Amino acid sequence: MTRTLLAAVLLASAAPAVSQQSITTLPAPVAADPRVAALRDDALNNDHYAWDIVEGLTTEVGQRLAATDAEARARDWAVKRLTAMGFANVHVEPFDMPVWTRGAESAEIVSPFPQKLVVAALGYSGSTGPAGVTGEIAYFDSVDALRAAPDAAVRGKIVFIDHHMMPAQDGSGYGQFGAPRRQGPTVASKKGALAIVIRSIGTDHHRNPHTGVQYFTDGATPIPAGALTVPDAEQLIRILQRGKPVVMHLTLVSEKREGGHSGNVVAEVPGRDPKAPILLVGGHLDSWDQGTGAIDDGAGVAITTAAAKHIMDAGQPLRTIRVVWFGAEEPGGFGGTALAKAHAADHYAIAGESDFGADRIWRFGSSYMKSDPATYGQLTALLAPLGIVKNDKAEADGTDVGPTIEAGAPWVSLSQDGTRYFDYHHTPDDTLDKIDVAQMRQNVAAWTTMLGVLSGGIEPQPKRRSRR
Amino acid sequence: MTRTLLAAVLLASAAPAVSQQSITTLPAPVAADPRVAALRDDALNNDHYAWDIVEGLTTEVGQRLAATDAEARARDWAVKRLTAMGFANVHVEPFDMPVWTRGAESAEIVSPFPQKLVVAALGYSGSTGPAGVTGEIAYFDSVDALRAAPDAAVRGKIVFIDHHMMPAQDGSGYGQFGAPRRQGPTVASKKGALAIVIRSIGTDHHRNPHTGVQYFTDGATPIPAGALTVPDAEQLIRILQRGKPVVMHLTLVSEKREGGHSGNVVAEVPGRDPKAPILLVGGHLDSWDQGTGAIDDGAGVAITTAAAKHIMDAGQPLRTIRVVWFGAEEPGGFGGTALAKAHAADHYAIAGESDFGADRIWRFGSSYMKSDPATYGQLTALLAPLGIVKNDKAEADGTDVGPTIEAGAPWVSLSQDGTRYFDYHHTPDDTLDKIDVAQMRQNVAAWTTMLGVLSGGIEPQPKRRSRR
Repeated sequence: MTRTLLAAVLLASAAPAVSQQSITTLPAPVAADPRVAALRDDALNNDHYAWDIVEGLTTEVGQRLAATDAEARARDWAVKRLTAMGFANVHVEPFDMPVWTRGAESAEIVSPFPQKLVVAALGYSGSTGPAGVTGEIAYFDSVDALRAAPDAAVRGKIVFIDHHMMPAQDGSGYGQFGAPRRQGPTVASKKGALAIVIRSIGTDHHRNPHTGVQYFTDGATPIPAGALTVPDAEQLIRILQRGKPVVMHLTLVSEKREGGHSGNVVAEVPGRDPKAPILLVGGHLDSWDQGTGAIDDGAGVAITTAAAKHIMDAGQPLRTIRVVWFGAEEPGGFGGTALAKAHAADHYAIAGESDFGADRIWRFGSSYMKSDPATYGQLTALLAPLGIVKNDKAEADGTDVGPTIEAGAPWVSLSQDGTRYFDYHHTPDDTLDKIDVAQMRQNVAAWTTMLGVLSGGIEPQPKRRSRR
Repeated sequence: MTRTLLAAVLLASAAPAVSQQSITTLPAPVAADPRVAALRDDALNNDHYAWDIVEGLTTEVGQRLAATDAEARARDWAVKRLTAMGFANVHVEPFDMPVWTRGAESAEIVSPFPQKLVVAALGYSGSTGPAGVTGEIAYFDSVDALRAAPDAAVRGKIVFIDHHMMPAQDGSGYGQFGAPRRQGPTVASKKGALAIVIRSIGTDHHRNPHTGVQYFTDGATPIPAGALTVPDAEQLIRILQRGKPVVMHLTLVSEKREGGHSGNVVAEVPGRDPKAPILLVGGHLDSWDQGTGAIDDGAGVAITTAAAKHIMDAGQPLRTIRVVWFGAEEPGGFGGTALAKAHAADHYAIAGESDFGADRIWRFGSSYMKSDPATYGQLTALLAPLGIVKNDKAEADGTDVGPTIEAGAPWVSLSQDGTRYFDYHHTPDDTLDKIDVAQMRQNVAAWTTMLGVLSGGIEPQPKRRSRR
């Protein structure tokens, strides 16, 4: 990783001058703040906080599906850990939400070639009940093809939607090729389908299905909705290509009930000026239920918390840093909505989240580009040695900080390399071994840099005693 | 793959001269038979037989566990396909054997950190029954450590054996690091263990457990025996490192019964001299039950059958080529034993099998090195352009042809690159997408070469009409 990073740094220094402006009109050099640079380099070389958090959370709690006992255990773990690390005002902000849980699931080709396939229910899937359902497969290569089909071609059948998502550094395939998951179940239901299975929204070739959320909208009745692994979807396509009717027996048992509880875990590094706008960073504490939520999103809470801790270790910032481990992001961003509502009166200097794994950050963008070009220049200059280019076309994103940004908070986006993210995302394979420690340190260094630049200045103070 | 192959060819031309003999005493050049070279190159560039077979078998039958209905369907499929390809004397040679089948299986840490782990029963595992068993984990880093432990440290507990198998081109880790699977259950049983789980004998980091055979020997009572995936084994180790007693609930339901049926599927390319020693090649038809048996060993039957078909397409060899799709290799080489017994009176010119995936062959060895150096020289010269080096230290191997070789048959070993074989071996991930078509063609070219050299000469004949 060191050589890769070095190469990226070299590229980052050279590329913007050539691609975005004439080489004869170089901008005035920005003097990077050496104190922030020192914090950055310390995090890059020495951080262990992030690994300690993600290793601990994934080992001692494991999966933590929203609104379940596991997520409650994770909140307890978080409060204990954040307190031990010396954060102030550590508390849980609870909220209510429905609970969806997975039961037994299996898929089997009944004819023409009997064999089992590997499947997982999508979030909020309807339940087949333990006996399962049996139906003929109706194949579509996209949601649009399903939409265009006459209802008679779908009614009473098990719809199967394919797609061809490829890996991309910016994860850009997820929007377009995620449509079979997000829209497919509703469209299939409204056409009278018995159930739906999709090719996993993923870029790997392993027998691990990718779950993920979907909602039945437009008054659609919930039907069983599952994802086949990529190899199983390809197998089903080969079977279909033989030209005979294909019959599947599908069991997807699940349960949805109202009255569940979740919550956001909030911790702060208090600023010297309690009235100054707050720096809001975080990731989400909940995970899907099949892996241990290492890259999604144990890494995100670990990275942002580690960065805040590096600032805390250096002294006291002018502005308060608020770290949030959001609850219940996966089933629909409940934590982000709850936080924005609970803190509608707060003022923010920035809002940003880490929720795209732990591979290196390759570019960034921020609303400061327009509102405060000097600060944007500082960020650009201080992030460049980490191999991070500025993205003047960036737009705000993030499920958890989204509602806070919509309410007016300035934003920053530190974009992780997503090339291999969708190999593991939402699968049993999202486990600790997928995290590259050196790359995660680069993330911590970038977030430390961002917090350092926006801190309003860090004043030395009697060193807090770190209890961990 | 082409560039890799080219590089390998260049290496293969240069390396032996330097490493194995003085550069001042070069051997007399061997004149490679141009007719065999032409067959070889045609297979390398044009083979589609192997893909057609492995794609068809894995799609239309899928998994084919020994002595089950699925394996019987696979035999029917094989007879039909081999007949359609124009092979003669296509028939099944049945034999009886016990049947072991898998039921429900799960593993769960009860304390200190409740969470599910992914497990699969090993072959001939005892059954926990549907209620499962609960016990404290007793950790060992090797079978030898387990052997050295006092019985009291094991009795009533669930033994967990770790290991650190690394990928190797020649698969050499499988012998040593496979001991936890092969010997662990017996040793644990004799010490009074409740059950045993091992770190999967594999080199990947996916949530797919590696099954495989083991036997309870020395009068050991069968106990439940399973393999955790590599990420799950690493998770269990992290949990154990916290220093608290770890309690697991383990469910491994399985059934073993006598009275099962399997069989070898035999097909021939009849030689001009029916009394000439036979060329015996093949792979095994059965597979483990979780993948579709693409690399283990759909590829092997496909490669060797394709090679025989290329000879058939070219004319009639002097010697009969016998292709065998062996039954029930995985649970203990039943097919190989049955074939040697049924054909004890037959004489062989060679016996060889393909059972190590479909990645390129990188070296070969043969008993001809000593018995017939001229033929060995021909093989060396004709295989070198495929990037295959000779291995003068090779020894006979292969579960299926082993008993025939032990009975006196000359042998050939065409060694596939096993670097990634144990990423998929015996897991749900052994599916068609793991086969690289270009590398598989190199395999077919090598086996075609071997059969061509040992054919005794191929005479043109009125072209058979290939029905596929």
